[in-house]
Amino acid sequence: MGYKVKIGLSNKHLHLQQEHLDILFGKGHELTRTKDLVQPGQFACEEKVDIVGPKNTLKGVRVLGPLRPETQVELAMTDARAIGIKAPVRESGKLEGTPGCKLIGPCGEVELDHGVIVALRHVHLNDEQAKEAGVKDKDIVSIKIEGERGLIFDNVLVRSGSKHEREVHLDTDEGNAAGCGPDAVAEIIK
Amino acid sequence: MGYKVKIGLSNKHLHLQQEHLDILFGKGHELTRTKDLVQPGQFACEEKVDIVGPKNTLKGVRVLGPLRPETQVELAMTDARAIGIKAPVRESGKLEGTPGCKLIGPCGEVELDHGVIVALRHVHLNDEQAKEAGVKDKDIVSIKIEGERGLIFDNVLVRSGSKHEREVHLDTDEGNAAGCGPDAVAEIIK
Repeated sequence: MGYKVKIGLSNKHLHLQQEHLDILFGKGHELTRTKDLVQPGQFACEEKVDIVGPKNTLKGVRVLGPLRPETQVELAMTDARAIGIKAPVRESGKLEGTPGCKLIGPCGEVELDHGVIVALRHVHLNDEQAKEAGVKDKDIVSIKIEGERGLIFDNVLVRSGSKHEREVHLDTDEGNAAGCGPDAVAEIIK
Repeated sequence: MGYKVKIGLSNKHLHLQQEHLDILFGKGHELTRTKDLVQPGQFACEEKVDIVGPKNTLKGVRVLGPLRPETQVELAMTDARAIGIKAPVRESGKLEGTPGCKLIGPCGEVELDHGVIVALRHVHLNDEQAKEAGVKDKDIVSIKIEGERGLIFDNVLVRSGSKHEREVHLDTDEGNAAGCGPDAVAEIIK
């Protein structure tokens, strides 16, 4: 039996850097927290922006807080293709060479020259949980999901440390392909 | 080493019964073939319809031919959720108890009371190919896909017989979750 972890499904979203928050929502604007996320310190915001690609626009995409050093747009491949962007699969924060897009907020627009990714699927574990699971930060593991659309995802990144809490992050394509409902659980099988 | 099969990605589409073709495109209209598909006798058509759910509309969804005894709308879960329909995972043709939707064509509208499904992932094989692969019609197998988003899909239905030709059918959520490009291949691992 592998170590079990609840699955969190990430809908398309973005993280903003200070300068872009200022342009999109007005100088001095602060993010409005609506819900704490499972990962410590992370939260969903009231703020939404439109994400514009060469082919189409994704309206009202939610901002997650807190602010980050660099703006990062996380889309499922279905979303990226819908707006005509070929986004690579990347670990969060590794944005070099990624495509950009236009962001439209209530107070202004930002033309990003990079920052659009499809998030590399990953599992968050704090230090104790990683120990229990027998894995460590940066390990690549496989996870098994049971059910009607049961499957095994290979190439799942372990992200572990004091700022993490037990949760698998999949995007909507992955969650749908695995038939994950709100209480879906994955098992780390290495 | 398992038996290798090329992957065909199914974008959202629908199959029509005669009566609905008549209403949507006008009495006497015949389907216009644009491309033969891998499965013998199946083809993509020029005809497109809008699929309307309680929340939104999918514009210009392609009709596949030939006509069938019963109209069937095949969506990825991402598509179904976008228009507010909770479509179940079903084998093609097993439409009892499935939700409906509205179809809008250039000549009229059809209010379907059932027929919307998420297709059960499956592998088509002719009799000889099934023998080579060591499987038979209606078997449930697992398939492995290599690559950056490598995974193993369990619960893959084998559909075999003289009207089938070697091809795995996945929907767009599944194809994206596995990072499948146009030349993607799966291996039957049982």
